[in-house]
Amino acid sequence: MSRFWSPFLHDLSPYVPGEQPRRPMVKLNTNENPYGPSPRAIAAIRACADGLRLYPDPEAAALRGAVGRTLGLGADHVFVGNGSDEVLGHAFNAFFRHGGPVVFPDITYAFYDSYCRLYGLPVRRVPLRADLTLDPAALDGPSAGLVIANPNAPTGLALPLDRVRGILRAHPDRVVIVDEAYVDFGADSAATLVAEHDNLLVVQTFSKSRSLAGLRVGFAVGQPHLMDGLRRVKDSFNSYPLGIPAQAGALAAWEDRDWFEETRRRVIADRDQLAAALRQRGFDVPPSQANFLFAANPTWTGAHLASGLRAEGVLVRHFPAPRIKDRLRISIGTAEDCARLLSALDAVMAAPGLTSSGSACRPG
Amino acid sequence: MSRFWSPFLHDLSPYVPGEQPRRPMVKLNTNENPYGPSPRAIAAIRACADGLRLYPDPEAAALRGAVGRTLGLGADHVFVGNGSDEVLGHAFNAFFRHGGPVVFPDITYAFYDSYCRLYGLPVRRVPLRADLTLDPAALDGPSAGLVIANPNAPTGLALPLDRVRGILRAHPDRVVIVDEAYVDFGADSAATLVAEHDNLLVVQTFSKSRSLAGLRVGFAVGQPHLMDGLRRVKDSFNSYPLGIPAQAGALAAWEDRDWFEETRRRVIADRDQLAAALRQRGFDVPPSQANFLFAANPTWTGAHLASGLRAEGVLVRHFPAPRIKDRLRISIGTAEDCARLLSALDAVMAAPGLTSSGSACRPG
Repeated sequence: MSRFWSPFLHDLSPYVPGEQPRRPMVKLNTNENPYGPSPRAIAAIRACADGLRLYPDPEAAALRGAVGRTLGLGADHVFVGNGSDEVLGHAFNAFFRHGGPVVFPDITYAFYDSYCRLYGLPVRRVPLRADLTLDPAALDGPSAGLVIANPNAPTGLALPLDRVRGILRAHPDRVVIVDEAYVDFGADSAATLVAEHDNLLVVQTFSKSRSLAGLRVGFAVGQPHLMDGLRRVKDSFNSYPLGIPAQAGALAAWEDRDWFEETRRRVIADRDQLAAALRQRGFDVPPSQANFLFAANPTWTGAHLASGLRAEGVLVRHFPAPRIKDRLRISIGTAEDCARLLSALDAVMAAPGLTSSGSACRPG
Repeated sequence: MSRFWSPFLHDLSPYVPGEQPRRPMVKLNTNENPYGPSPRAIAAIRACADGLRLYPDPEAAALRGAVGRTLGLGADHVFVGNGSDEVLGHAFNAFFRHGGPVVFPDITYAFYDSYCRLYGLPVRRVPLRADLTLDPAALDGPSAGLVIANPNAPTGLALPLDRVRGILRAHPDRVVIVDEAYVDFGADSAATLVAEHDNLLVVQTFSKSRSLAGLRVGFAVGQPHLMDGLRRVKDSFNSYPLGIPAQAGALAAWEDRDWFEETRRRVIADRDQLAAALRQRGFDVPPSQANFLFAANPTWTGAHLASGLRAEGVLVRHFPAPRIKDRLRISIGTAEDCARLLSALDAVMAAPGLTSSGSACRPG
């Protein structure tokens, strides 16, 4: 802080990403894919590395065309950016400046709050039900726009497509962002609804189901008038958000449908096995359609379990926030990672564990 | 445009980047480096391609440390982003929201205007002198902050370091951004002034002198309170702006000092030869310290020459703006590229060239 900081800068409260540990750990805290990207993506990145003296295509036409083709849409229905975080940021800036509040659930991706602070947008948080599901009727009321993560993070719970359609119809004059970062692990994508709903903006990422978190590529799908709006914001900020390796790697990963199908099937199978094993141990585990679980133990606090796991060399995500502070968000690793998580958990729960104040146990 | 566009979005007027042609041309329009990046950077990018399932280091600690060490500064004096355009955008947002106008020359990098529109910042444009040099006293007056491109684009003219120091002293309570995208081709970097000036923010890029335009890496150097401000904005927008290939490639390029020195020397030598050849042909060519020339012919309009060159297979940049519409911004290519430009220019100027309205000739 200094005299050069404006009041705006003072008041910003940024998103805090999950830790990237420097020592080797079983890393189940940022929902990375254990299986690695398509070998074709790796080859494409290596092949393009000697062409980097030139600027990339600012329009990323080849990548946008490929994504659109798969969805039965033209490239003019696709926008790409430097990770879905950048795409979401531009979308908030482009479509949510209508004066009313941006509406999203109280338990969801914490970055939505950061965007609203960044762009000075008011917020209305809609409480999820006690079972962490969303009541679409609770979204009703005046708004500048809505954001639904589907599946939601960190709960992993998905909304069926007919509910998404209902939300789109209930808010015809506002853009509804459906953030589908985790959709490929079991939910239905709203991308199939783009043609019938001019207020729908679907956002996806290459970081999870395409296992390219280290490359930074995300995209949005929607009707061309929304893509034009996103491009206006993007071209006022950074003409070339995706470098040549990012465009080449993402394109090759997108086209390797077999790799995508096989690895996501493995993640889904491992997730369902891990959920069963946690439930056997008494955990409450909502039925996740994502590549993570959001588990609560009836006895131990989330903070106690997270720090105990860390001491055992296993990193999971713990959010010290109301309503969810006793849950752990556990990314689905390899089968071996999942086994190591379970044995570490067993060790933590077998130890006496009580601090002098007894705070490792949940009240009641 | 649609009912989902806010007035803000309607009023945005984005930056238009130089063309990336799809057919083979002598491409001298976006100031790319003809010599390609360090072979070590290419090797580093290839080597990291199979580790992309993990998120990159959100702090880019290794890259920031390396840049800082070269400059005799700690990593806490360095901020990195997805090209210097993103770094500049964040800097405008972080430091220029003080109510007054952002001050910069009337002839400079057009993206500064775009940022001000994006962030709703008023602008005061300071006219350059007739010879395209900057009078530092003309910057005086109330402001929210100042931006100086040094060397300036598209003029190529550099301000000596004592003039930069004078500007820093004349505006002690405002951040002064010195945009040094082209500094390695002959100007003195203000990075050496960071320790004595708490209002100085130096911005550089890997796109030009490190020949990595396709990788998208830029950085800022300044005192830690300014870096903290930039990080607040960045972490409210995108936690991971630089992917793993970008961090690895930039780090290797930065550490290959020999490649950097040899290639920039070649660009400088070719630039000075091309400037002499253009002056022999009657062009006015201000003494450039960048990797481009900004040349005006006394007879032919800029539009005529640019379109004639394009027909000959040579792409240069032409800005149809007041005061500079009769100049061409010509990037320095290989010696062969420069020779092809000259022979194409000779062909264009030898042709009758006059349109029916005679508009290919400059008035008077």
